Amino acid sequence: MDEPEARRRLSEARVARLATIDERGRPHLVPFVFVLDGDTIYSPVDHKPKTTTRLQRLRNIERNPEATVLADHYEEDWAKAWWVRARGRGRVLERRNPEFARAERLLAEKYDQYRGAPAFGPVIAIDVAEWRGWSSAEGRPLHSSP
Amino acid sequence: MDEPEARRRLSEARVARLATIDERGRPHLVPFVFVLDGDTIYSPVDHKPKTTTRLQRLRNIERNPEATVLADHYEEDWAKAWWVRARGRGRVLERRNPEFARAERLLAEKYDQYRGAPAFGPVIAIDVAEWRGWSSAEGRPLHSSP
Repeated sequence: MDEPEARRRLSEARVARLATIDERGRPHLVPFVFVLDGDTIYSPVDHKPKTTTRLQRLRNIERNPEATVLADHYEEDWAKAWWVRARGRGRVLERRNPEFARAERLLAEKYDQYRGAPAFGPVIAIDVAEWRGWSSAEGRPLHSSP
Repeated sequence: MDEPEARRRLSEARVARLATIDERGRPHLVPFVFVLDGDTIYSPVDHKPKTTTRLQRLRNIERNPEATVLADHYEEDWAKAWWVRARGRGRVLERRNPEFARAERLLAEKYDQYRGAPAFGPVIAIDVAEWRGWSSAEGRPLHSSP
């Protein structure tokens, strides 16, 4: 799987997982919805139910921007499995940031669920520094940096 | 979602994601097959195609045992989404370890794909110290430690 294919598969995925590092140096992991724009991944943080879980990823990125994102496809026929991973650094965008409006528009284009829905809170932006993709059919990883 | 339900959902998931910390302190993330046995998650590392990607998770755990596992369910109807997360510490079991045979048997019981298949390499064992579960229907996270 080459880098354009890795980007395409991540871009089309409806959900991915975000790994960050918590205040005790441990890996933190959540599923998230997102949109890929060039080499930046945007993901909203819901505004309303401000649980500690939702805020944890923001606190982590503000303290340590290292972030890794994974989208994967599983089938019982393991020969059809694949995954795509993007590693980079995160930023937290508040609404006043000019980049926020772009992220908001792109997210609403990808997810009908955001159309006409109440505004979400901060957006996490992850600037991808390294792409990796793997498919069982090919059996070997891709390693590249944009 | 209470802790027994979180365990049940993780146990039944066919795939989950494993986050560890790499040698540069960055989050590493891979999808993996696994079996849950009490508070221990066992996951095989395939023997044959020893790519650097497959070995990375072993190197990470041997250096820093902190590990987090996530299983999630996504639907376009977001009211049906849920996830389960287990945080703990990993160990690498080689075939000579008495625990290896138990892991091998449990994995073959869960996955037909391992029956009669060539033996796999080391097994990662993660001893769970904390469970979390979230469902959109409930809207609040569970926090508990076994």
